[in-house]
Amino acid sequence: MSRKVIIIGAVAAGPKAACRLKRLQPDWDILMLDQDSLISYGGCGIPYYVSGDVSDESELRSTSFHMVRDKSFFEQAKGVEVRTRTRALSIDRNQKVVRVQYLDTGQEEDLSYDTLLLATGAQPFELPIPGAKLDGVFTISDLHKAIEIRKRIAAGKVSKAVVIGGGAIGIEMAEALTDLWGIETSLVELEPRLLPGAVDSHFAAMLKQHLEEKEVRVFTGESALSMIDNGSGSVAGVQTNMRTLEADLVIMAVGVRPRSELARAAGLDVTSWGAIKVNQRLQTSDSSIYAAGDCIATTSFVTRRETYAPLGSLANRQGRIAADNIAGQPAVFKGVCTSFIMKAFDRCIGATGISYEAALFEGFDADYALTSPSDRAHFFPGQAIVILQLVFDRKSRRVLGLQAFGSMNDSISARVDAAAALIAEGGTIEDFCTLEMAYAPPFAAAIDSINAAAYVAENMCDNRLRRVHLNHFLRWVDNMDSEDWVAIDVRHPKEVEPYAQRFGAERWMSIPYEQMRDRYQELPEGKICILVCNAGTRSYEVQVFLDAKDKKDTLVLCGGLNVISRMGVSWYGGKEV
Amino acid sequence: MSRKVIIIGAVAAGPKAACRLKRLQPDWDILMLDQDSLISYGGCGIPYYVSGDVSDESELRSTSFHMVRDKSFFEQAKGVEVRTRTRALSIDRNQKVVRVQYLDTGQEEDLSYDTLLLATGAQPFELPIPGAKLDGVFTISDLHKAIEIRKRIAAGKVSKAVVIGGGAIGIEMAEALTDLWGIETSLVELEPRLLPGAVDSHFAAMLKQHLEEKEVRVFTGESALSMIDNGSGSVAGVQTNMRTLEADLVIMAVGVRPRSELARAAGLDVTSWGAIKVNQRLQTSDSSIYAAGDCIATTSFVTRRETYAPLGSLANRQGRIAADNIAGQPAVFKGVCTSFIMKAFDRCIGATGISYEAALFEGFDADYALTSPSDRAHFFPGQAIVILQLVFDRKSRRVLGLQAFGSMNDSISARVDAAAALIAEGGTIEDFCTLEMAYAPPFAAAIDSINAAAYVAENMCDNRLRRVHLNHFLRWVDNMDSEDWVAIDVRHPKEVEPYAQRFGAERWMSIPYEQMRDRYQELPEGKICILVCNAGTRSYEVQVFLDAKDKKDTLVLCGGLNVISRMGVSWYGGKEV
Repeated sequence: MSRKVIIIGAVAAGPKAACRLKRLQPDWDILMLDQDSLISYGGCGIPYYVSGDVSDESELRSTSFHMVRDKSFFEQAKGVEVRTRTRALSIDRNQKVVRVQYLDTGQEEDLSYDTLLLATGAQPFELPIPGAKLDGVFTISDLHKAIEIRKRIAAGKVSKAVVIGGGAIGIEMAEALTDLWGIETSLVELEPRLLPGAVDSHFAAMLKQHLEEKEVRVFTGESALSMIDNGSGSVAGVQTNMRTLEADLVIMAVGVRPRSELARAAGLDVTSWGAIKVNQRLQTSDSSIYAAGDCIATTSFVTRRETYAPLGSLANRQGRIAADNIAGQPAVFKGVCTSFIMKAFDRCIGATGISYEAALFEGFDADYALTSPSDRAHFFPGQAIVILQLVFDRKSRRVLGLQAFGSMNDSISARVDAAAALIAEGGTIEDFCTLEMAYAPPFAAAIDSINAAAYVAENMCDNRLRRVHLNHFLRWVDNMDSEDWVAIDVRHPKEVEPYAQRFGAERWMSIPYEQMRDRYQELPEGKICILVCNAGTRSYEVQVFLDAKDKKDTLVLCGGLNVISRMGVSWYGGKEV
Repeated sequence: MSRKVIIIGAVAAGPKAACRLKRLQPDWDILMLDQDSLISYGGCGIPYYVSGDVSDESELRSTSFHMVRDKSFFEQAKGVEVRTRTRALSIDRNQKVVRVQYLDTGQEEDLSYDTLLLATGAQPFELPIPGAKLDGVFTISDLHKAIEIRKRIAAGKVSKAVVIGGGAIGIEMAEALTDLWGIETSLVELEPRLLPGAVDSHFAAMLKQHLEEKEVRVFTGESALSMIDNGSGSVAGVQTNMRTLEADLVIMAVGVRPRSELARAAGLDVTSWGAIKVNQRLQTSDSSIYAAGDCIATTSFVTRRETYAPLGSLANRQGRIAADNIAGQPAVFKGVCTSFIMKAFDRCIGATGISYEAALFEGFDADYALTSPSDRAHFFPGQAIVILQLVFDRKSRRVLGLQAFGSMNDSISARVDAAAALIAEGGTIEDFCTLEMAYAPPFAAAIDSINAAAYVAENMCDNRLRRVHLNHFLRWVDNMDSEDWVAIDVRHPKEVEPYAQRFGAERWMSIPYEQMRDRYQELPEGKICILVCNAGTRSYEVQVFLDAKDKKDTLVLCGGLNVISRMGVSWYGGKEV
């Protein structure tokens, strides 16, 4: 029996669901609507189109075999009817009818459905500040905006830009403007650090430092108060609470929210923050209406609570699952780890699960193992340090998250993806200790970075490793009289020299790692000894040795100077280690 | 109470166990023996040392902070006593005594232990053929051999080389000789394909094709019968059953076997193929004797049977677990997926779990989904096709393995590692459909390659996708009269042209994908229609459409011409797609 399915929204979840459904039920009528004229595009590719890495916007709307995914493509190749420039105005759930308006004619029509799929996506927040509507102020809400931004840049109309919002999209846009076009770009973020919510503050600090090396001017903890008018309705700059930033172009990337007005007006259940509620089969509170993509709430595998994960990749997976269920073939979407990865110039930053800060907030007995191993065999040419952190619950030993910052390659993908697979299954520190990572020197170290981080976590849980919190240590160095501490630097004496000169040999002592068994009696009494090396590994070994000698007032600087050297700390004495 | 632990073997599992144990039990006496003078080296790095990528052999024996891991390093930095050039002759389990011989003096001594750890590793097979002992014939059994090989090459004494054995080490050695030193290198493998046991034959074929592009002469299905003497005791070549290959250097890399003579002589349980049997705590049949690393048998997560996985990475993990248990802190090593990855010139090949061929042999209701997606967003610069195959059991829908062949970067690591994490947990096709892979265009496609492969597998299990076995199709093309088939090539007509010319438009028809809904009645009756495109995706969609039109005599060429173009098939009409 043929059925009629209407899909509202044609960017990611919608097209995926439409095509899958047509394959599962070739006789059904599938109608996909979108208020836009451009559909089925890779929104996450917008920064790379703006930068010029992607030469034409149509590439974002094309298949891998170079066909543009427009109305006629869906109709001819896929057998899915498409109406663009068609806005859904309301849903009559009793009559099973969607009222639509054709934007080009203004005409309205009632379309009946057997099953409805809401794939209405997300929309960017607009800051409600004076001047937000000036010409030259953009959100990244659709491809038209991106086309217009690139047109202005290519026409030489942009020499200075301000990006408001230090999340992934803001940072990617800042890179696009700076790196490829040489535009003097400022990045303004209200929170005191970049990527709020996604990573811990020391990871955000490393990213900030790298952006600044690449000449992005980063202003965190700063709030955009108004846009400055050039006198003729175009933007001339941004006024923050701290300064005036000139700009011919302003991009607002301050987050997105679920587009759920239609659902709410139809009386479907939505969360307090506006996301459509669905069950694991992606059914809304009306069993004839499904929802998928950036408009829905999903479940965190870590907290088991509602979360929001607007990502094209998840939208595609959900679109397929919604189609399966609509077609009568049960499938479930269980939840998300909220994996995240991004390129920032020459660096990659990625994470999965939740951050340490989030884990504390959630009430876990949270802690983190911060490490700085090599991203492949340390003797292999091109190897680089990666900063890797495992977040865990001390009591249950469950791993709650992983964060990584390193060189721009796929090695962080490997760790984040493997971790996500385990975290979704409730993996423990012990599972991460034995997690099998494919090994050959060009790809990994014999003890993989992810195993090494788990080893540190295990040693912490078993109280074999006592560490100083990175932030505490940084505060102590900034305010030398705050605590009676001395750094015991176990690296090669030549590496220690600049620190000993800066802080004095009393405050920053050199006892090389391999001499500790002979020289441990030189350690001062009655002071906190902070054991310091590049990665934290030698410091831990020294701590264990000293404990056995009953010298227990030591703390390890986990991650070591490899972390500090990347954070833009003023007193750091050398190059990036 | 202090205890005395003796560790026999000081390459990977031994040193890891020794250092961990000393940290867990600082008061215990840990003595590590090795018959070699060089210890604690990264054996997997040998090809990169021979190639010159790693400039000095000491780098393979150094820590990441550039200290050489020799006897004095272990003693001073780690507090572990080391005796090199010390061979364990026998174990008296009743007396708990190891009889050792000091190779430099010939002197023997009995050393008593409370607990013993066998980390005796593996040793390479030597082919029992005439001339195997000639000067210039090497196995890669230790660092001394590698040093000697590189010395000869650097001195200009090698212009032609033969590598016997087409496993990972043989291939890596062939690359080292060819790529960096320009030595004319032949690779001889007894089996009809490279990497026997590790990947399926079409993956091996793609690898072979690439090696040949890089001017390695590859002879598979060929057997080395004898070494040719140059008349003065040095090797001058290899005689195979097919030809004579000149060589100044011959490397035998025909596999390794567990070094377990000591264990067997002491009456410990060993497998029929010579590996030491251990429980999950890595205890042998004598509860005072543990074993770890390349000398033990372990359990396959896929088959649940004994398997052999000699790898430095696993040896390190096992060493740590053995130490934990010896120290009285329970830990388990549950088994392996046998993940594997290697660089071969500009390509990477990796796998985890078992191959399709192995799965059939093991009695699974095995099948495989062969795909050829992009390794990142198809619009992102530098993206490349990766050939990815999921092996699964049709009945249980359990995923049994993953194989991948693509560009030399870390993207295959990400897929192999994430797959291994799931396979170890018994993951199903549905788990792989929703596996969360971190997404941004520089790292992945919105529908990740691993999800896409799982989608294909699911469609196969649900009988929505009927495919022709790649090997059947290749045989049909080679012998045109064998079956009454016609290729329906749904790509752009320009892409189809060379095939239509070669095979005739009757045999290789062009009906573009997007025209199929209008033109399907042109399809011939009474013949098997093989649906062909680059990746198999369009072909599948067409099959589903034709099924609905009751045209059911079609088969999809999974993976499409992307796979065939990489296999060195003679009739392939274009460049690598």
